[in-house]
Amino acid sequence: MTRYLMEHPRDLVSLKFFGQRYGSAKSSISEDLSIIRHTVATWGVGRLETLPGASGGARLTPLYSKENAEKVIKQLTAAVNDDSRLLPGGYVYLSDLLGRPDILREVGRLIATQYVDQDVDVIMTVETKGIPIAQSVAMYLNRPFVIVRNSSHITEGSTVSVNYVSGSSRRIKKMELSRRTMREGANVVIVDDFLKGGGTMNGMQSLIHEFGAHVVGMNVFAEGQFKGNRLVDDCTSLIAVQAEDGRNKHISAEAGNYLDKVFGEKKEK
Amino acid sequence: MTRYLMEHPRDLVSLKFFGQRYGSAKSSISEDLSIIRHTVATWGVGRLETLPGASGGARLTPLYSKENAEKVIKQLTAAVNDDSRLLPGGYVYLSDLLGRPDILREVGRLIATQYVDQDVDVIMTVETKGIPIAQSVAMYLNRPFVIVRNSSHITEGSTVSVNYVSGSSRRIKKMELSRRTMREGANVVIVDDFLKGGGTMNGMQSLIHEFGAHVVGMNVFAEGQFKGNRLVDDCTSLIAVQAEDGRNKHISAEAGNYLDKVFGEKKEK
Repeated sequence: MTRYLMEHPRDLVSLKFFGQRYGSAKSSISEDLSIIRHTVATWGVGRLETLPGASGGARLTPLYSKENAEKVIKQLTAAVNDDSRLLPGGYVYLSDLLGRPDILREVGRLIATQYVDQDVDVIMTVETKGIPIAQSVAMYLNRPFVIVRNSSHITEGSTVSVNYVSGSSRRIKKMELSRRTMREGANVVIVDDFLKGGGTMNGMQSLIHEFGAHVVGMNVFAEGQFKGNRLVDDCTSLIAVQAEDGRNKHISAEAGNYLDKVFGEKKEK
Repeated sequence: MTRYLMEHPRDLVSLKFFGQRYGSAKSSISEDLSIIRHTVATWGVGRLETLPGASGGARLTPLYSKENAEKVIKQLTAAVNDDSRLLPGGYVYLSDLLGRPDILREVGRLIATQYVDQDVDVIMTVETKGIPIAQSVAMYLNRPFVIVRNSSHITEGSTVSVNYVSGSSRRIKKMELSRRTMREGANVVIVDDFLKGGGTMNGMQSLIHEFGAHVVGMNVFAEGQFKGNRLVDDCTSLIAVQAEDGRNKHISAEAGNYLDKVFGEKKEK
């Protein structure tokens, strides 16, 4: 039952279904559910709700408690704080972290925590390095994700495209999304790996408006330093990285604005 | 405990760790483990091994029984069998399926089943559409995945590149992989979304040889029809698609060679 609920996060599963599936009485299912509820709450990894009535059932929403979130962000910061990650031009090598299932699980759960009480229909990212993050978030929100492409691909069918200005390089680029992927009025969460000038984020916002859909929130794994005005604000970052190129090659990573934004105003979670 | 084992697949977890974590006696842990063992075996979704001794512990390997695999492949085939997926040039639109967490879970578990008894160090794919599959397989094998890029990117650091001939278009292309991602002697599983001429697969094989690593196996979600000799053989496909462009637009999808390859020779699994 734990397995079923874990693999169908945020789905309302009727108790009748469990009864038929496991051939157990309603009372023993309720008992098991209350054990699961207690366990996920104690470990700070989720919330189990049970809704009464004929249309009721049980729903497991994965999330992280503030304590867990702080612990994970500390781990991420420590992993990024490594001068050998510095690349020419002040870029930071993150591909290894974004290819590790354990890290992606943590990142997905953190970002999903921000939307526990909101309706999300689809997660959007831009190729390439945002994809693993989008997929992890999608797993925990149990919603599909869509990939915006930098150029037109035959396997996408007809697409909608927008031009956007890269915030850091100031060049005009184009991004496209397959027409089939998103319906009008969809609630979209945007994720990406790295935020510099915010041009890509801004482009994705325009694309979402083209589709007549709504932006629920924006998230990045890491936020870099940027001189000047970003093209977006209100983007949640898990970590913030200062990369110093030049003679003293040095990276310093610290917590991003995630903890403040998600746990800052609420007294208890 | 189920949750911990599910999130750390194929890891050997010592019973002492569980004892300390949950504050329970060894006997009740053993009892719980045998319930988990029985449950995953009955549902055909995994194998729980317990190794005795000081260095022993419990290990949960996710897999699918033949019955589950057949059911899932039937579902995938039905989902692809839809003429509206046909794109000009005989291409097939699959991006929606490869953005759905439920489908990706199934695909990941199917491909991981093939390697239950093998050592895998890393999963390799090429951008863009292979990434979600690689990530799902990586989740179930609990190993990192690496993304081969079509062009050099500043955020990858120094790279190793190979030229390859696209099997279907006969053009020479280039693919690159960050030097930091793979160590010599690593056992690599290759995955991609679609197999036509096999040029991309072939290119990834060369890249793996450049790194002094070994190919453990190759997998695709779907195999298309191809006139002439493929550049690779021995690639496992979940489904096989015949797409007929031209006047009679029609797609027919059927099971690929997966079931034969994975369950064909073994009498019972």
